[in-house]
Amino acid sequence: MKTAVLTGVGSDLEVRDDIDIADPGPGEVRVRVEASGVCHSDLSVQNGTIPLPTPIVLGHEGAGVVEAVGEGVASVAEGDHVVLSFVPRCGECSACRRGQPFLCEKAAMQAAGGLLDGTTRLSTPDGALHQMACLGTFGEVAVVPEISVVKIAEDVPLDIAALIGCGVLTGVGAALNTASIQPGDTVAVIGCGGVGLNVIQGARIAGAERIIAVDKFASKLDMAKQFGATDLVNPDDGDTVGQVMALTEKGVNVSFEVIGLQPTIMAAIDVLRPGGEAVIVGVPRMDVVLELNAAFTFLYLNKTVKGCWYGSADVQRDVPKLISLWQDGDLKLDELISREIAIEDVNGAFEAMESGEVARSVIRHTH
Amino acid sequence: MKTAVLTGVGSDLEVRDDIDIADPGPGEVRVRVEASGVCHSDLSVQNGTIPLPTPIVLGHEGAGVVEAVGEGVASVAEGDHVVLSFVPRCGECSACRRGQPFLCEKAAMQAAGGLLDGTTRLSTPDGALHQMACLGTFGEVAVVPEISVVKIAEDVPLDIAALIGCGVLTGVGAALNTASIQPGDTVAVIGCGGVGLNVIQGARIAGAERIIAVDKFASKLDMAKQFGATDLVNPDDGDTVGQVMALTEKGVNVSFEVIGLQPTIMAAIDVLRPGGEAVIVGVPRMDVVLELNAAFTFLYLNKTVKGCWYGSADVQRDVPKLISLWQDGDLKLDELISREIAIEDVNGAFEAMESGEVARSVIRHTH
Repeated sequence: MKTAVLTGVGSDLEVRDDIDIADPGPGEVRVRVEASGVCHSDLSVQNGTIPLPTPIVLGHEGAGVVEAVGEGVASVAEGDHVVLSFVPRCGECSACRRGQPFLCEKAAMQAAGGLLDGTTRLSTPDGALHQMACLGTFGEVAVVPEISVVKIAEDVPLDIAALIGCGVLTGVGAALNTASIQPGDTVAVIGCGGVGLNVIQGARIAGAERIIAVDKFASKLDMAKQFGATDLVNPDDGDTVGQVMALTEKGVNVSFEVIGLQPTIMAAIDVLRPGGEAVIVGVPRMDVVLELNAAFTFLYLNKTVKGCWYGSADVQRDVPKLISLWQDGDLKLDELISREIAIEDVNGAFEAMESGEVARSVIRHTH
Repeated sequence: MKTAVLTGVGSDLEVRDDIDIADPGPGEVRVRVEASGVCHSDLSVQNGTIPLPTPIVLGHEGAGVVEAVGEGVASVAEGDHVVLSFVPRCGECSACRRGQPFLCEKAAMQAAGGLLDGTTRLSTPDGALHQMACLGTFGEVAVVPEISVVKIAEDVPLDIAALIGCGVLTGVGAALNTASIQPGDTVAVIGCGGVGLNVIQGARIAGAERIIAVDKFASKLDMAKQFGATDLVNPDDGDTVGQVMALTEKGVNVSFEVIGLQPTIMAAIDVLRPGGEAVIVGVPRMDVVLELNAAFTFLYLNKTVKGCWYGSADVQRDVPKLISLWQDGDLKLDELISREIAIEDVNGAFEAMESGEVARSVIRHTH
């Protein structure tokens, strides 16, 4: 059972085959992971932007087939195809009941790198291995909570399905759930990586008339255009805010920051017209502070600043919805996959991500 | 024609009777102002928090009777009872068309202290007098844009109607329009003056289960309870955030800041539970800066910070709606009026507001 392990912040991942996996406990399922996206948040754990305990199996965006279920599991059975959700959804806590299952309180244990009870089902001869987001899809097999899987039809290719679990739900959800885009709106998307491209197609589906894509990589701007951007802005050609204002006169109705840097978050707020809404999708480092003038930003210019966590998604509602949009040709998923790789190539996928070379790499586990 | 004039920042208002008023121009109406609220924003112009040119006639919350109409006016006629709106609503600009008439682009000239064309209809022998918010309800008569008036039924008392024009629309609108309160929610309202009390009753109408009122004046907390607050917090008894957390365990779903000070705005954000929404209603000084940790505030705690301008109101929709709520007994308006005063007592009304003594003073013009 080949598994890529992060032994410490800043290290390359090590592919090992001496991992032991426990049987699924009550309310848990064992999934043969067929495909796993390589997401920027994996890289953020590797480089320390997102602090998680090590050693850990990264990977939080996957799809596979249920191999076994633990006691009391009723929603899925052996052989079911599933998308793995990086946030569990208990349906019972105050967040789930308020229609905010992306903030399910059962996710609180994730910071400890274990499953819902804080412990993990993976170990090496040296000791326990943590699992990112209650998952760990950089391993061929994962034992995960039942409430972290969403059953899908068997005719959906599992590499396509894998991407829905994080990047697509986050990006499309940011546009369809988190933001309040109205048909005819003008929108700016700052950062056109794997998630940003999905924000762009979400904005298109929401009816935005103009979608201004901002990125410093010409290759990403080309992709942005394929996914629905109507205007392209490269910060290397001049100040982002100035360029967006020149295109729109008054600014945009809704902006998305999909990088996580202080200057680009401030730009996302500054490009808004009065009454506009900035949605922060990118995950900033813990030390990023925004200084906002209260009167101008919030009263006189009446702006809204909101964070987007997991596309404000309800996975049981949104996974089938996105698959349906894909089947109808309204959502591009195949085009997101720049290359399929073996688990041994995961470090190369991190490098490709940092160089802006690809939209998304997808790991195909071979079993 | 008695009119209270602010001659310069920091001065007492002077009641004068040597004011000349021009005839209404095209698209303008002359209104006999019967009642005018004394609002905290009037005080904010007087003390310089809100910068407007002087000399100026303050007052932006009134109701009266149409005395004459200018060329092309079709929506109201002589004798109609009207509420004066402190934001015009053209119905044609991009903000109005997007359902944000509270940001109508015709309001842009208000900062210059004139009507829509930047000029004013009031003068003294010494020169032109500015009009606050295209209105100036501290005068017995006002010439205002047609798009700044909302026709109401003649059986609605005009002192009640006057308050709807600003404080009630702002406060109730903050709860019903700006915020996304869900039935059963827990809400905090920081600042229980004239607008804060309306936020409280708006939250009650929206179905909030717990409404935590925060104010340092015991008299205002008593009023807050009458208007629907279920829990009372006095910052003099200890840290506001700590007290609200002790009451709620996880924090509140929605908070409102209705003062405009940096520490209370930060408290409004800090008392939110994950996924919560802070609505800034109070108008801060121009130099108030909020320092927000991007990752914690917006991503991990998934908070939203939004400004509330004029209760995100559509006056043509919301004025009749609020009158109907009042007629049904769901909205307290009579109880908001602590005392009715003559225009000569307006400086005393400012003092009462600063001392926290009254909910609202309403000027009755005598004509």
